[in-house]
Amino acid sequence: MESEHHGSITVLRIGHRPFRDKRITTHVSLVARAFGADRIVIDEKDELLEENINNVVSRFGGDFKINSGVNWKKYFRDFNGIRLNLSMYGINVDDKIEEIREKTKNRDMIVLVGAEKVPIDAYLIADYNIAIANQPHSEVSALAIFLDRYFNGKELHKNFNGKLNIVPMEHGKMVKYI
Amino acid sequence: MESEHHGSITVLRIGHRPFRDKRITTHVSLVARAFGADRIVIDEKDELLEENINNVVSRFGGDFKINSGVNWKKYFRDFNGIRLNLSMYGINVDDKIEEIREKTKNRDMIVLVGAEKVPIDAYLIADYNIAIANQPHSEVSALAIFLDRYFNGKELHKNFNGKLNIVPMEHGKMVKYI
Repeated sequence: MESEHHGSITVLRIGHRPFRDKRITTHVSLVARAFGADRIVIDEKDELLEENINNVVSRFGGDFKINSGVNWKKYFRDFNGIRLNLSMYGINVDDKIEEIREKTKNRDMIVLVGAEKVPIDAYLIADYNIAIANQPHSEVSALAIFLDRYFNGKELHKNFNGKLNIVPMEHGKMVKYI
Repeated sequence: MESEHHGSITVLRIGHRPFRDKRITTHVSLVARAFGADRIVIDEKDELLEENINNVVSRFGGDFKINSGVNWKKYFRDFNGIRLNLSMYGINVDDKIEEIREKTKNRDMIVLVGAEKVPIDAYLIADYNIAIANQPHSEVSALAIFLDRYFNGKELHKNFNGKLNIVPMEHGKMVKYI
């Protein structure tokens, strides 16, 4: 979803434990793709997860990228762009989203989402610590709402031009294969 | 979040397998609470999950209810109110949200969210099959975006009056205990 209005968007998933968090990190990755991010980077190496997500991309379209096994702190600190940490301890997204949109018009953005406890370094390195409500919920919903606010809801109408396309139905399921 | 504008909101989680889906259903429940639903009902009995969610409610406030171990099909079919199924095969939320808001001004609403494969009955019983993008992502994000659209984003500013309150911070974590 790179456009004339903003740089690329990278989601950085940290605290991933391939067995315990398999499904949650899969959901975070699918949200990143469906809501308009360009790629996800995951701290722990997880080839099965990479394969699953690449399968979704090859069927449903788009050019979303996944990469796992990185030193997250170095990656986050050295990122050339605006660094966000999504956390229930941060500032309400509605108070900062316009400023973030303005600052990323010509710059890339990285959005960190942690599992359970996020090291304090993430809060200190981040340019913005952003809360999607100061209540406990989920990194899956936090990322979705953040990207939805960032794109003003337009990402729900994005066409991915995949081989497999869902045809919206009042009652039932319809899939079109190209 | 019952108000003068709408009836109660129940989330119905189906296909829950206590071991495999523990964390995802926990996230679904926390989203239901944080984004303004009144209760969650889960098909499989799961006392540990109930206890976890009740703990969050007692610390963070509000009067969200959780109940597990119900016959979902009977519960959904016999529900006295507007029945929704969230699914990537449905109609885009943006095309239906005003109509749904109108219809639930004086009526209760139930929102079904399934794990992986949802039986076709859910699609047939539902008054509305609603998609949050016709792309695969997550029941956690689908529920969050649906409730966010329904409440026009106001739920992010709801005060839960809990014993434990997060104080928004630019960098760091602050919790106020009452």
